[in-house]
Amino acid sequence: MQASLSLKPALDAIGQAIDARFDRLLAVPEDARAPLYKAMRHAVIGGGKRMRPLLVVAACDLFHVDRERALRVALAIEAVHVYSLVHDDLPCMDDDDLRRGKPTVHVAFDEAIAVLTGDSLFALAFEWLADEATHEDPFVRAELVRELARASGPCGMAGGQMMDLAAEAGGFDLPATTRLQQLKTGALIGFSVEAGAIMGKVGDSTRLKLRGYARDLGLAFQIADDLLDVEGDSSRTGKAVQKDAEAGKSTFVSLLGVERARQQAAMLIDQAIHHLSGFGPEADLLRAIARFAIERDR
Amino acid sequence: MQASLSLKPALDAIGQAIDARFDRLLAVPEDARAPLYKAMRHAVIGGGKRMRPLLVVAACDLFHVDRERALRVALAIEAVHVYSLVHDDLPCMDDDDLRRGKPTVHVAFDEAIAVLTGDSLFALAFEWLADEATHEDPFVRAELVRELARASGPCGMAGGQMMDLAAEAGGFDLPATTRLQQLKTGALIGFSVEAGAIMGKVGDSTRLKLRGYARDLGLAFQIADDLLDVEGDSSRTGKAVQKDAEAGKSTFVSLLGVERARQQAAMLIDQAIHHLSGFGPEADLLRAIARFAIERDR
Repeated sequence: MQASLSLKPALDAIGQAIDARFDRLLAVPEDARAPLYKAMRHAVIGGGKRMRPLLVVAACDLFHVDRERALRVALAIEAVHVYSLVHDDLPCMDDDDLRRGKPTVHVAFDEAIAVLTGDSLFALAFEWLADEATHEDPFVRAELVRELARASGPCGMAGGQMMDLAAEAGGFDLPATTRLQQLKTGALIGFSVEAGAIMGKVGDSTRLKLRGYARDLGLAFQIADDLLDVEGDSSRTGKAVQKDAEAGKSTFVSLLGVERARQQAAMLIDQAIHHLSGFGPEADLLRAIARFAIERDR
Repeated sequence: MQASLSLKPALDAIGQAIDARFDRLLAVPEDARAPLYKAMRHAVIGGGKRMRPLLVVAACDLFHVDRERALRVALAIEAVHVYSLVHDDLPCMDDDDLRRGKPTVHVAFDEAIAVLTGDSLFALAFEWLADEATHEDPFVRAELVRELARASGPCGMAGGQMMDLAAEAGGFDLPATTRLQQLKTGALIGFSVEAGAIMGKVGDSTRLKLRGYARDLGLAFQIADDLLDVEGDSSRTGKAVQKDAEAGKSTFVSLLGVERARQQAAMLIDQAIHHLSGFGPEADLLRAIARFAIERDR
């Protein structure tokens, strides 16, 4: 199924805005670093659903945070997301050749450049968030950095990837798989939404609601990913499918079966949308994203 | 030659302070992330000269910055330095088996864990710098993050490592090799010194002097490293020697010869110390570090 009509223009607009900014910020220098910049451009420009940037913008809309400020943070989060994909695709990790419909960085360039591409995007994300040229309040800049660092470090994404390596040995049950995914993909999705609350300087109770939304959305998103890995078409998803089953990894689908996994995802999305009940139409984009998360075909 | 008498106690004290803090911050969790934490501990605890932490503390001493604040930043910088070593040692990069007298992380654990160990240390460095629990002024926290990100990204360390890969093809002359090293090792050494100025909130003219000191020190330090690679003993350096010559890489020694390289390093150290002429005895530690940089045997 295609993105619901209300979401498609938003996704396209975000994609273009993100691409334009990456293009500007990653101009290829005329020295021996050129291949590194070309590899970063290959990885970040013109691909992906841009779900996390859209979440940042949608969460910022709730609190009337200026679009330009939202996009700057969205760009940093997307850079971190892509960095994690580049490292995750390495031969010593998931060993994937295809990503977003293109050869992965270590295939198009080489492994050493892929390592440095991830490292560089990670560093740039923090530079962009902390830069005083953003005119962002220093307190907000420091808080964004801290939360992004937490979401991507050993208590977040990197920790989840470590669990994922351990999961290849098998034996992960449903609670362990849930925890793995909450770290591996949930933490950064959570920060994407929470960034809006940080920039909007809203209170703890509002932040708690958004965290609940993000937690349920993140899990549903991952279940949908697992379903696409089983049922998807690599010409649509732009990456290899059936990888998890071949690796013998526990997934929500292997643990629950296709039908119950689908029901669980739908239930989580209802729950995610319920967390937004205190908001009016300004949260419609977040609601549409939640529905899209389980309706998408890539 | 051993560290000069005045420096040895300082190096030992810093080493112990850094080890104690890493030990506390990297407690091994009782879940599937345990190997990741063990690998981080293997990489960061009990090894290395701790030159960068000592530089941070010495620079902070100039401006009477509290030792505890200095050590926190020193820890973040050392984490970033070690992360770069772990990635640099990977088979697809320099393919080193020995580091700080111990097996490298990908040998002691595996390649995937080595990638995640580097990624995790990098994330933690930013988390530690940005954490509001430090009671550091938010403006200072944001500035430390921005400068560390710059020093480690594609315009700093990662960019220098990319140049280093290109240098393996040969043909790097002296200016190109100098620029490579200024990025690869100079940027982080520069930030180690500048961190003192940021925390001390000193003016631009003082910062410029410290930058000059760090630039000259960084190059001299690298020349000394190149000399150790040619003349050193791996039982002292704790890493493989003669690597550069085997790889056919241009180094200061291959470009200048041993004698001129040694003279150049001595000249740079004189220059580095000259940048400190406006300071009194409070800069004696920075002066001693400069002398140590070219007298060390590891």
